[in-house]
Amino acid sequence: MAEAKKSTLWLVAERAGVSIASVSRVLNGQPASQGVTERVRAAAAELGYVPDATARSLKVGRTEQIALAVADVGNPVYVGMMHEISRVVTKAGYRLVLSSTGANPKDQIDLLVGLNRGFADGLILSPLRAPEELGAQLKASRFPIVIIGSVPPGVELDNVRADSVAGMALAVNHLAEQGRERIAFVNGPVDTVPGAARRNGYVTALAALGIGHGTQVSARDFTYQAGLKAATALLDKETPDAIVCANDLLAIAALNVATRRGLRIPDDIAIVGMDDTDIADLANPAITSVNLGATKRARTAAKLLLRRLENPEAPLRQVVIEPTLTVRGSS
Amino acid sequence: MAEAKKSTLWLVAERAGVSIASVSRVLNGQPASQGVTERVRAAAAELGYVPDATARSLKVGRTEQIALAVADVGNPVYVGMMHEISRVVTKAGYRLVLSSTGANPKDQIDLLVGLNRGFADGLILSPLRAPEELGAQLKASRFPIVIIGSVPPGVELDNVRADSVAGMALAVNHLAEQGRERIAFVNGPVDTVPGAARRNGYVTALAALGIGHGTQVSARDFTYQAGLKAATALLDKETPDAIVCANDLLAIAALNVATRRGLRIPDDIAIVGMDDTDIADLANPAITSVNLGATKRARTAAKLLLRRLENPEAPLRQVVIEPTLTVRGSS
Repeated sequence: MAEAKKSTLWLVAERAGVSIASVSRVLNGQPASQGVTERVRAAAAELGYVPDATARSLKVGRTEQIALAVADVGNPVYVGMMHEISRVVTKAGYRLVLSSTGANPKDQIDLLVGLNRGFADGLILSPLRAPEELGAQLKASRFPIVIIGSVPPGVELDNVRADSVAGMALAVNHLAEQGRERIAFVNGPVDTVPGAARRNGYVTALAALGIGHGTQVSARDFTYQAGLKAATALLDKETPDAIVCANDLLAIAALNVATRRGLRIPDDIAIVGMDDTDIADLANPAITSVNLGATKRARTAAKLLLRRLENPEAPLRQVVIEPTLTVRGSS
Repeated sequence: MAEAKKSTLWLVAERAGVSIASVSRVLNGQPASQGVTERVRAAAAELGYVPDATARSLKVGRTEQIALAVADVGNPVYVGMMHEISRVVTKAGYRLVLSSTGANPKDQIDLLVGLNRGFADGLILSPLRAPEELGAQLKASRFPIVIIGSVPPGVELDNVRADSVAGMALAVNHLAEQGRERIAFVNGPVDTVPGAARRNGYVTALAALGIGHGTQVSARDFTYQAGLKAATALLDKETPDAIVCANDLLAIAALNVATRRGLRIPDDIAIVGMDDTDIADLANPAITSVNLGATKRARTAAKLLLRRLENPEAPLRQVVIEPTLTVRGSS
């Protein structure tokens, strides 16, 4: 790429207003005044300075930290992912800085601004919603970013995705094979990335099987309490013979609401959750759940970021992790 | 303290082998060569340099980061604490660096060594075990540390503790008031700080009531899977009319093992857990649990560390958070 070739020591020196020797000193980690150090680092970063193979290991402005931002650190699926990312980056000599951004895109944008002030060498971001404004900030970032989930339109970043649509098909096909005919759906908010993808998967899978739509309800968020309300609303309306749920917290809520109404699981109603977290095991009976490869996604994201830090010019990678189904007592 | 008075600009300059002007420049964040900066900071830290009121806000080697090390980031009680600490320190302008150390004291010691290399301004540590070697490292630390839990003997650090003994008394007294007479105990490992404290609380509370000992079993660790084994071993031996458990994961395990054996909760057996996490709500019926004030402990620890960073000479504080009991359907 011509752009990369123009980024030389000379251009950095010109932009920083210092000598080539000063640039070399700073990038080699040798003593230089604080002012020179800062100007060289800023100029190198602005120019997208790509060191050659020897210089590459002398990272520009290296903090030895990787930032992780997840939508909800309280959700067991994120806790497991955090664990795995922590394990991989620690092994590579990085510390993990935690930024729980909540569901608010504004917080994620603040985080990206902070990242550009240089507190970490790179970021792993798992946004719950991907609005256009976030896309603009992602494009403007000077630092490597790996997205777990969907990338906003027009943004080119390494990313790792689950295949919710294939995962939902595994759940629906499993239930249909068991002879279930009225398969209802407890989803989270449909204006979220996972909510939209899972609804799409549910509708597509039922259509492929030639089974008519079951009832769909949307919980206010992906929590247990919201799940109790949504499952109650569903069972007040009708008694399906199966409920597929957009995550395990919603599934354990549906299971408990059904059990309290005297329905037997799985005889009267089968329940299938999604994410295959520890929560699925805590239920009685334990919950069949679609494993969307959270641990593998986390590990892959961490490795993609380490690769990008090692080689900023590595080709873009977009990885999709295939889902599997863990069958337990609830179906 | 005489020691603190001797720590002046002059002593730092002497130790660093630089001029007083250089010390002043570095501590005021003005340009200085990297070598001088490092020598001044090291000397100031070694001498426990305490700046006066004006200089205090110009933190020595400030990273704007706080490190958090918890024994098991997968345990819901730690996840909640992490959430709360993140909230408080972020509001004060710090980033939270996460170090899950596992149950191995060696990892905690490595962490303290890393802290002394200056990656964070302070540390909140929640050790599962508190051996003497950890005590020595804690004493040697140049950075403020707040302990959540017990402080090793001879170590003077700000700390926040739960009162497990009082908490266990709440659980046992509640069960006795319900007319339960054979109160068994599913504990975690007794060589851990919480395991030892909770056993002590259980024995003390039963003795105070004049009720004889029930059967005690120890799970291999504080997890659900270990709880299933321990509860199975207990119920193979006898059927008590109540089981008090050392945390909520062990309690949900005991509840599920009892339910699968056809025992009705709470009619045949009452179950009480500890920590009052979200997990207690997921059970069917929901589990009565001792709230050991995890959120309050986390908030208090974060505030104690911020106070210590603000004023290194603030008097030592040791805070005990009083437990409460959240009664739910299992008792």
